[in-house]
Amino acid sequence: MLADVGVDALFVSHLANIAYLTNFTGTSAALLFTREALHFITDFRYLSAVSALQAGPGACPGLEVCPVRESYEETLVETVGSLGLARVGFEAAHLTVSRLRWLQATLTGPPVELMPTEGVVESARLRKDAGEQATLREAARRLSAVLQGVMADIRAGLTETDVALELETGMRRTGFSRPAFDTIVASGPNSALPHARAGDRRLVNGDLVVLDFGGVYNGYCVDLTRTVSVGPPSPQAVRVYDAVRRAQAAAVAAVRPGVATAEVDAAARDSLTADGYGEAFGHGTGHGLGLEVHEAPRVARAHPASAGRVYPPGHVPDETTLQAGMVVTIEPGAYVPGFGGVRIEDDVLVTAEGCEVLTTVGRDLLVC
Amino acid sequence: MLADVGVDALFVSHLANIAYLTNFTGTSAALLFTREALHFITDFRYLSAVSALQAGPGACPGLEVCPVRESYEETLVETVGSLGLARVGFEAAHLTVSRLRWLQATLTGPPVELMPTEGVVESARLRKDAGEQATLREAARRLSAVLQGVMADIRAGLTETDVALELETGMRRTGFSRPAFDTIVASGPNSALPHARAGDRRLVNGDLVVLDFGGVYNGYCVDLTRTVSVGPPSPQAVRVYDAVRRAQAAAVAAVRPGVATAEVDAAARDSLTADGYGEAFGHGTGHGLGLEVHEAPRVARAHPASAGRVYPPGHVPDETTLQAGMVVTIEPGAYVPGFGGVRIEDDVLVTAEGCEVLTTVGRDLLVC
Repeated sequence: MLADVGVDALFVSHLANIAYLTNFTGTSAALLFTREALHFITDFRYLSAVSALQAGPGACPGLEVCPVRESYEETLVETVGSLGLARVGFEAAHLTVSRLRWLQATLTGPPVELMPTEGVVESARLRKDAGEQATLREAARRLSAVLQGVMADIRAGLTETDVALELETGMRRTGFSRPAFDTIVASGPNSALPHARAGDRRLVNGDLVVLDFGGVYNGYCVDLTRTVSVGPPSPQAVRVYDAVRRAQAAAVAAVRPGVATAEVDAAARDSLTADGYGEAFGHGTGHGLGLEVHEAPRVARAHPASAGRVYPPGHVPDETTLQAGMVVTIEPGAYVPGFGGVRIEDDVLVTAEGCEVLTTVGRDLLVC
Repeated sequence: MLADVGVDALFVSHLANIAYLTNFTGTSAALLFTREALHFITDFRYLSAVSALQAGPGACPGLEVCPVRESYEETLVETVGSLGLARVGFEAAHLTVSRLRWLQATLTGPPVELMPTEGVVESARLRKDAGEQATLREAARRLSAVLQGVMADIRAGLTETDVALELETGMRRTGFSRPAFDTIVASGPNSALPHARAGDRRLVNGDLVVLDFGGVYNGYCVDLTRTVSVGPPSPQAVRVYDAVRRAQAAAVAAVRPGVATAEVDAAARDSLTADGYGEAFGHGTGHGLGLEVHEAPRVARAHPASAGRVYPPGHVPDETTLQAGMVVTIEPGAYVPGFGGVRIEDDVLVTAEGCEVLTTVGRDLLVC
């Protein structure tokens, strides 16, 4: 990896990347990754946690602990100097301008060149190894159990926040260390807002309710959405639901090695368009899952090549071709302003032959 | 503010700063702040939420909504161009190198100068206005009630995670939208680790248990720590507890307008040193609270002036002098490796005469 980007060392500042490389999950660390070792910089608060980690089965080979004396940045500069490094890469998508400016102003001794890099560690994180797959499979099984436990209790009169509390308490009791994002419980007209959260609205008969929640289990994120009906659904609700269900099944069926993520997106989008809901689906079909709840690859529309357009960071079209070991969400939706919306989301692992759906909750419209 | 930093406009990318300026609390936005207006860039997912916000009592005056067409960055560039701006500040402590490089490469039409700025909006956030003070007071009252409800239930045999779940469920039921950080329940030897989280360890008689948790209430963060004893405390536990309690009271007593934050830290540190625990207190005394759980000012040790040292970002000594309206935590601790630790934390508002302690839980050592 270092040779590919032409550097002697990579300064890793993004905590998820540090966790990937070292198994350290605290909230302050920096890593200087050379061909020989992982120089791990941390402060006194975490030294005993790192010792315990290194004494256990999750020990990181080649880890050299560099305790912070004055600050992370100054310890990094000392380490670069003591190793005599000339070309040091940094993570341009994560490092702030302030920190880079300070490093540029300070690394003035021997000529050290700071080189921007993009996605070096992230590209290694794309394909999950067997241990990561096992963690994500178990996490998805547990998240599914949480939803099954809560769906039966949903009824008119509860507030969205009541339902969110049940989901979050269920996650805690099921071994999740925290929610992976703010739980969405979007009922009735709120279900037409793809990024509604949970509010004070009380569920009433006839509501569609989008339940979208996720948790962090042993450091890994899973994410699940189902839409339920409070009381019998209207004919329109059934039509929207069936269209999204067909689109979601079409996208899952498209997942296999060698397929571009944009083709998976197209499978969902074409199905919704055929059912008359193409305009009602304004977001992408899915995203990668792992140490972060939104990571590469994006499962989104292919952008037509636009002459002269220089894509901003995070908007470069994702041209990833699926490979075995990738884990993505498949979560198309349809949103009808003023009426309501439906989203159905599963987490899928790309396998050698196709895919394994990790989340195990049924996809029939549940009437609460 | 704009004139002080010599720019025509400030590009605000930090979400807490955007929330402060606009009341918008979604997870994607950008703001271009000129003398005339707040050009608020958001995407289709949030347009209806922004319309609702602008129709209600939290409407932001001068807000001009700029919907994203292709990307946030490209919409920002279009807005800068349409306004004919020449000098645009950006938030160097928050903007990533990737985004700055893209903006520098793209803003090539009329000569636009991008100027790094530090802490422009943060400096306005230091003193809380009457509405913010009322929110923080109510949040601290609620957080105190959560702890009072849980402390009585703590007993030998529960795991740290059980106790954390009780605290987090209590917060949800009391109106908090989410924890402000990962809840710390550190028992027995774990209590000697200032940044332990909650794990599988079961509480046993004789443990000291540090409970450190916080929540977000109407967008504002509060933070509270108490240390309890499971069964009768040992004489050593009583000694450590009393020393921390004295130090915490000394620091609270030092809080008033015109006092440097370093003097407040010294009040706690000198008290612990006098009691023989100076070396056992390795962190700062406190931090500001508001839209973020760690914000300015830091209540920390004064650094002796160090000839030629160029402080890295986040390490510049905090020379803030307290002013009425600031809200800080006061949370000294003492940590004895292998034995255990004690931390006591309250949230205090600086008033015209001194301070108001917002958290209302008693400070006697509670024996569970």
